[in-house]
Amino acid sequence: MTISFSDLPIRDEFRGMTPYGAPQAPLPVALNVNENTHPIPDDVATDIVDSVSLAVRDLNRYPDREFSLLREAFAGYLGHGLSAENVWAANGSNEVLQHILQAFAGPDRTVMGFGPTYSMYPLLTQATGAQWFAGERGPDFSLTAASAVAQVEEVNPNVILLCAPNNPTGTPLPLDVIAAVYDATDGIVVVDEAYFEFAPHDAPSALTLLDGRPRLVVSRTMSKAFAFAGARVGYLAADPAFIDALRLVRLPYHLSSLTQVAALAALRHADTMLATVDNIVEQRDRISATLTALGYRPYESWTNFVLFGGVADPQATFLALYERGILIRDVGIPGHMRVSAGTEEETTAFLDALASLEF
Amino acid sequence: MTISFSDLPIRDEFRGMTPYGAPQAPLPVALNVNENTHPIPDDVATDIVDSVSLAVRDLNRYPDREFSLLREAFAGYLGHGLSAENVWAANGSNEVLQHILQAFAGPDRTVMGFGPTYSMYPLLTQATGAQWFAGERGPDFSLTAASAVAQVEEVNPNVILLCAPNNPTGTPLPLDVIAAVYDATDGIVVVDEAYFEFAPHDAPSALTLLDGRPRLVVSRTMSKAFAFAGARVGYLAADPAFIDALRLVRLPYHLSSLTQVAALAALRHADTMLATVDNIVEQRDRISATLTALGYRPYESWTNFVLFGGVADPQATFLALYERGILIRDVGIPGHMRVSAGTEEETTAFLDALASLEF
Repeated sequence: MTISFSDLPIRDEFRGMTPYGAPQAPLPVALNVNENTHPIPDDVATDIVDSVSLAVRDLNRYPDREFSLLREAFAGYLGHGLSAENVWAANGSNEVLQHILQAFAGPDRTVMGFGPTYSMYPLLTQATGAQWFAGERGPDFSLTAASAVAQVEEVNPNVILLCAPNNPTGTPLPLDVIAAVYDATDGIVVVDEAYFEFAPHDAPSALTLLDGRPRLVVSRTMSKAFAFAGARVGYLAADPAFIDALRLVRLPYHLSSLTQVAALAALRHADTMLATVDNIVEQRDRISATLTALGYRPYESWTNFVLFGGVADPQATFLALYERGILIRDVGIPGHMRVSAGTEEETTAFLDALASLEF
Repeated sequence: MTISFSDLPIRDEFRGMTPYGAPQAPLPVALNVNENTHPIPDDVATDIVDSVSLAVRDLNRYPDREFSLLREAFAGYLGHGLSAENVWAANGSNEVLQHILQAFAGPDRTVMGFGPTYSMYPLLTQATGAQWFAGERGPDFSLTAASAVAQVEEVNPNVILLCAPNNPTGTPLPLDVIAAVYDATDGIVVVDEAYFEFAPHDAPSALTLLDGRPRLVVSRTMSKAFAFAGARVGYLAADPAFIDALRLVRLPYHLSSLTQVAALAALRHADTMLATVDNIVEQRDRISATLTALGYRPYESWTNFVLFGGVADPQATFLALYERGILIRDVGIPGHMRVSAGTEEETTAFLDALASLEF
C-alpha cells in the first residue's frame, strides 16, 4: 500500500504543502534561478582542484569547526575594516538566514519583510516556528523610509529582512531606509545583499552602516556574482557578539573541508571570479531596453535579473519559451515574469524567442 | 564598547548558553571525536579529485536539488531492496536528524531518547522548539524492550531517537527493542546507526525492519567507518512518503555539487573505504582488554570507541593525557571517559600513556 507524507504524523502546517520547486530541466538556456551563467574560469578551476587534492587525504577528520581561514578571507574580501570575528558563513545564504532566525526568531516571535520579496523568507521563518508578516512596497516596488518605519512600528517584529537590491523585483534600497528601519526597531535588521555586486560601482553597501549598530547584519552569497552556486557558500558580516549567537544554533562542523578549501581558492581569485559582472550588467540593461521596445514593462534592476510586467499569460509564455529550450521564471506576480541575464548569446536567444511569440 | 550575545535580542533560552565544543587541538593523537583516524586511501583520493575536476567548471550552476545519483548510490550500498526513493542525505547526520525533527517535532511536540546518549539529540530537539525527554537505561547502559516500551507509553513522544549502537556508551541495541518501541508509539522512530559498521559482521541492521513500518527511519553517516567526516555526509533510509516530508523542510540545494561528487566517488570505493574497520575493531577490543587489566571498567562496545568507568578524576586524566599529546573525551558521566580506537600506533600511545599515569 502506498502512503503519502500526510498519512505520517507530520506537523499539521506541513499537511498538503508542496516543497520549494523551481523547475530543474536540462534546457540549453537556463535563465530561471539567477545563476551566473559563465562557467568558472580555467585558472580558478585548477586552483580549486589543487586545493581539494591537498585536503582530500584528511577527509577522515572533521573540518575546522570555526572555519577560521575562510572567515579571515571573507573579512579581507569585504574590507570596511572588518576582521574574522565579524564574519560567519554557511551552506548558502539560506543557511546563513536560517541560523539568524533560529537564534533571534523561533516560536512566539515575528519576522517581517516587504513583499514581493525573496520567496524563501516566509518558508525559513515558518520553519523556526515564527510568524511571517509581509509588509508592502510602493509603486514600482520601491520602499521609502517613511513607509518602512510606519509598517515596522505597527508590526514591531523581532527580525526584519531587507533584500537589497530586492529579489524578485531588482529594486535598489537606499541606505537611509535601512538606517531608519534600524532606529525604528529593537529587533535584528538583516540586509540581504545577495545581488549587491551587480549594483552600480558607486552604490554604497550596508556594510558602511555596521559600525555602532550591533543589531544590524549584512548577508552575502557566492552563488550569484561569484559564480559559485554549486559550492553553496553564503556569509555575513556583523558585530562579534552577533556571530557568537550563531555558534549556539549552527550544527557542529556545518561547513565541510571541501567547501572551506574551495571557497578559499575562489576568494584568492576574487577579481577573476567577478570579471563577468560588468558583462552581465550590460546584458541586463539590454534585456530591459529590448523588453521596453517589445511593449513589456521592465522594472529598474540593480541585480542580474529583470522583472517585467505586461505579460498577458505568464504560464503560456513560460511554456512557449520552454519549448524553445529557454527557461525563465514565473514568480507568481500576476502579469509578470523574471529572467536572469545570461551570456550575450543566451540573452540574445531569450530576447529573440520572446520577440517571436505570437501573443 | 564590547557587547555579548546576551545583550542582543536573542531568544531567552539561549541566554548564557555555551555552544557545542569538543576541544579542537592540533595534538598528534586525537581520539576524542570518534573519527576513523586512517587517512583516505590514495586511489580513492585520486578518484575524488578527478570527480571534483569534472564538476568544478559547472560550480556556477546550482547543484541537483534531488541529488538523484547520490541517492541511487546510497540505495545500492545499503541493499535490503532499497531504491533511491527510500533514501535521503544531508550535510552530516546531524542535518539529517534536523530535517526529521523539523518535519515531525517542532513547537508543542516532544522527542525522547534514552540517556546517556548522543549529546546533540537534546540540542537538535530544542532548536526546533520541541521538548526533550531523557529516558533511562538499565545497568551497563543496556535497554530492554520492556523498559523502553514502559517509558515510551508514559511519555508518549512524537519522535523517538534510538542510537544503535549507542554513543557515548557503545551499547548494542537488539532489534526486538526497536520493533517493540515501534509498536508502542504512533510517532516516528529513528534508529541512528552512525556506528553500525563496527558491529559484529552477523549483527542485523534495523534496515531489515523497514518493510511495512512507514514510521521507522534508519540513519547512517559517512563520518565514522567511511572515514569521511570532513566531507559532512549523513543519510537515511525510510518509506518514500517519509522522504517526501523531508523535502518540505530542507533548504533548497542543501547538498553542494562538491559534496555530491565526492560522496559518489567514495561510495564507488566502499570496500576500500571500509577496509580499516576490522583493524579498528581489533584496536577497540585491545583497548577494552588493556583497560580491564589496568583496573578500569570498560563497557561492551559495538562501535569504534570505548567508554570506561573507574576514572577517579576525569579532568585530571584528560589534562595529563593532553600534556602527552593525546586527546580523549570527558563526556560528562562522572568517573567515566571515552576514547576512540585509532590506528595500532595511536592506540598504543594512548594505552601506554594511560598506564604511566600515577593516579
